[in-house]
Amino acid sequence: MDWTREMRYRPYKDYSALDLLKLQRQAGSSPAQLHYHIHPASGLLNDPNGFSYFNHEWHVSYQNFPFGAAHGLKSWMHMSSNDLVHWQERGMVLTPDNQYDSHGAYSGSALAQGDRLFLMYTGNHRDKDWVRTPYQLGAWMDKDGHVEKLAKPLIEKPAKFSEHFRDPQIMEKDGHYYAILGAQTAEGEAGHIDLWTSDQLESGWHEVGLVQMSQYQMGYMIECPNLVFVDGYAVMIFCPQGLNKQVSSYQNVYPNMYLIGDGFNFDHAELVNSSDKPLNLDCGFDVYASQAFNAPDGHAYAISWVGLPDTTYPTDDENWANCLSQVKELHVKDGKLYQQPVSAMRTLRVDAKRYDFAGTLPMIPEPDTQQYELSITIAKDQEGSLNLLGSQDNHHALKLNFDTKKGQLTIDRGQVGQPVATDHGTTRTIDLTASHDLELQIFIDHSLAEIFINGGAQVATLRYFADQNNNRIYFNQPTKAQGSLWPLSNM
Amino acid sequence: MDWTREMRYRPYKDYSALDLLKLQRQAGSSPAQLHYHIHPASGLLNDPNGFSYFNHEWHVSYQNFPFGAAHGLKSWMHMSSNDLVHWQERGMVLTPDNQYDSHGAYSGSALAQGDRLFLMYTGNHRDKDWVRTPYQLGAWMDKDGHVEKLAKPLIEKPAKFSEHFRDPQIMEKDGHYYAILGAQTAEGEAGHIDLWTSDQLESGWHEVGLVQMSQYQMGYMIECPNLVFVDGYAVMIFCPQGLNKQVSSYQNVYPNMYLIGDGFNFDHAELVNSSDKPLNLDCGFDVYASQAFNAPDGHAYAISWVGLPDTTYPTDDENWANCLSQVKELHVKDGKLYQQPVSAMRTLRVDAKRYDFAGTLPMIPEPDTQQYELSITIAKDQEGSLNLLGSQDNHHALKLNFDTKKGQLTIDRGQVGQPVATDHGTTRTIDLTASHDLELQIFIDHSLAEIFINGGAQVATLRYFADQNNNRIYFNQPTKAQGSLWPLSNM
Repeated sequence: MDWTREMRYRPYKDYSALDLLKLQRQAGSSPAQLHYHIHPASGLLNDPNGFSYFNHEWHVSYQNFPFGAAHGLKSWMHMSSNDLVHWQERGMVLTPDNQYDSHGAYSGSALAQGDRLFLMYTGNHRDKDWVRTPYQLGAWMDKDGHVEKLAKPLIEKPAKFSEHFRDPQIMEKDGHYYAILGAQTAEGEAGHIDLWTSDQLESGWHEVGLVQMSQYQMGYMIECPNLVFVDGYAVMIFCPQGLNKQVSSYQNVYPNMYLIGDGFNFDHAELVNSSDKPLNLDCGFDVYASQAFNAPDGHAYAISWVGLPDTTYPTDDENWANCLSQVKELHVKDGKLYQQPVSAMRTLRVDAKRYDFAGTLPMIPEPDTQQYELSITIAKDQEGSLNLLGSQDNHHALKLNFDTKKGQLTIDRGQVGQPVATDHGTTRTIDLTASHDLELQIFIDHSLAEIFINGGAQVATLRYFADQNNNRIYFNQPTKAQGSLWPLSNM
Repeated sequence: MDWTREMRYRPYKDYSALDLLKLQRQAGSSPAQLHYHIHPASGLLNDPNGFSYFNHEWHVSYQNFPFGAAHGLKSWMHMSSNDLVHWQERGMVLTPDNQYDSHGAYSGSALAQGDRLFLMYTGNHRDKDWVRTPYQLGAWMDKDGHVEKLAKPLIEKPAKFSEHFRDPQIMEKDGHYYAILGAQTAEGEAGHIDLWTSDQLESGWHEVGLVQMSQYQMGYMIECPNLVFVDGYAVMIFCPQGLNKQVSSYQNVYPNMYLIGDGFNFDHAELVNSSDKPLNLDCGFDVYASQAFNAPDGHAYAISWVGLPDTTYPTDDENWANCLSQVKELHVKDGKLYQQPVSAMRTLRVDAKRYDFAGTLPMIPEPDTQQYELSITIAKDQEGSLNLLGSQDNHHALKLNFDTKKGQLTIDRGQVGQPVATDHGTTRTIDLTASHDLELQIFIDHSLAEIFINGGAQVATLRYFADQNNNRIYFNQPTKAQGSLWPLSNM
């Protein structure tokens, strides 16, 4: 479908309920639909927003255009959970309805304050000449889910930035409130993270300054910055657009990256002793706009948009697109970020149908669904290919080409099914330690694969679009390996 | 809200998508909303429909009027699950869109046929003078969820019945198709179950006759008949309206009852050697329109509407109403129907937070949520009251008044919170074996209590509307008891 500007910004009230019900049916019944990941009730899903713990529950929203697979007029769709795994739909929580967010209730974050949750988000406004002004807005959500927006913006865009000034992450430190935002300088169009502070929350916001975190220029724009404190380190997760690939290599249209510092100086807006060269947060094909926060249970968690800007997916033809990743627990080890499934993911396992295997294997018995967890260790000093989602005729599979002698894994989604974003390549290669066992924890959910490598040292996330009957799991030649497979229940 | 006929039958296309999104938000975020039971995406939920196993998944739909807590223009909202516990929303599957179902795609059932699912349902048609004609209609659903309705009705109403002729349950026996329907005779207005048969499925339906199953008249109408075969017996589950309480006692406005026979004679439409006097399927306050079927795994399962006709509930003010029960596995023992939670219900338990107790107890530690399973055995020869959902000031609680000497349990929802259907009493009394331990397995889900008594010999299901902070569990005096409590995760 060709989405004109008029179609994309048509008010929700001008769509009929019958159209929406049909779109919800189309999304809900797609064979490619996710069964244990957050997916759009209808239309397009993008950035996770407002990831938080409040009122004895975990909360996250996602950016949503409900009326098709297009980046149209966006709202927040709210989900809640008691275990970070089983999410319940709570409905649309922030919708464009005033002069400041007239053209979209864009991304933002949330901060629990007693018995209310404070939401800070970007209102997207365009004037009649389609000139954009971003506003940083506030809203309160009470325990019953009622939302009241603040009458006035928290932050108006400083003149030194272009129209690209958005995605506030709000946090509280030592009695002060802080927010970091993605920003582009008006002059020179350079990407930055901008730090703001206030002591009053609802007002009094003023700029601290651009965050110093690398000697390198982070492209022409940074989106979705997140600062989290992990195992004594400060971790900045962000999405640089137009980053020079010689600074840090990536293959996706835009990367989601991170820097690690020994701490963060809020007075001087500095990631202290930064790792300087950003690393990819995910070494797969489709992660962007991850949102992370420090939870009251002492852990830092992240959740990602599985989808990319400026990218089409096969389900666009079914009028829906994208999903969120599973929640990942963050750790820092040896100067690198580790991401692991949360412990409650184990509650999805259908233990009665668990299958264990060990030996020199040609294959692993075929599950009867693309909804499973495969935990597998491939012994060191072997070379070969583990094929997942294989068709009976061997023509289609997701190929994990491993060399555990040299220490390399190449994920090839070129033959798994319908092509996705092939302009940006069909393989991703991950360097591993030479002559070591390779541990993979693989989650398959109908059109999503999340591959945790060596205890979360790397994560490779990717969408695939295969026939739902393609379930063969096999090595291209007998390979020494062991592990377990569990079918997983719906969330 | 006062729902006029015009409002109730307004076409879905005349509502705006924004209105529907607001209604979905209201339902999704209600403090009384269910977290591990099927609940309406918006508006009113009633009968379960099309409960079946097809394409490696369990399926059930619910009758839904999406635009408020009223019995308006109904559709089927479809859910699917891989374990009978974790249900995923699939969206609206049968909507009123032709001359036969113009005023509602009413209740019906489903039968898997190879790689398609056959749906048989009642189309509700009214003419311009508002005279109703019910049609029994057919539709095919394929594996991708696409539905195609048959062009012509399967069954047109025989003249001997009034406008009340509906709720077909379709089944297959020895190569023949059968359907039982709820019916009211035009003359005398007597309630019956009517048996039909066909060898072609899509056509050729003809009447076998009224089902003989009791010497007593089953009131003025029978709704939602279900025939299932359980442990070698034929069980007829149905909803007689206007049943003489001297035939079989009940307190709800209309009961959901069952009869047990040694078999069912399809040639002569007879429940062979019937138990004759129907018994209540549920001894609580709110079960109706249960749907049951024989699954390919060898078990018979039932799922119930938790809600009653002609009854208002407090959430009507929030524009949504009702839910489905959990799925219950059926057994026959000592001439009575037993209903038990399915084994996968255990996967909801948060084992890490399990609390075991035993002794002569004044109370059980308070859970921090109205989302738990309480398994408790109260020793024989005691009298007292187990209070659930108790407020700190002791003014509010759901009271389970037990006498394990005499053998009686009285459930009193009169003081738990907002009143519901008080015209039909605030207590329900269940007779038990004298001088026996009392085993209760209690599921609490924010506004729903399901109480399985003595291994499912009785089930008492009820809605309650209490402050979500009221979580005290205590005896009115120290009582000898033991058991376990688990918080449960969202489905």
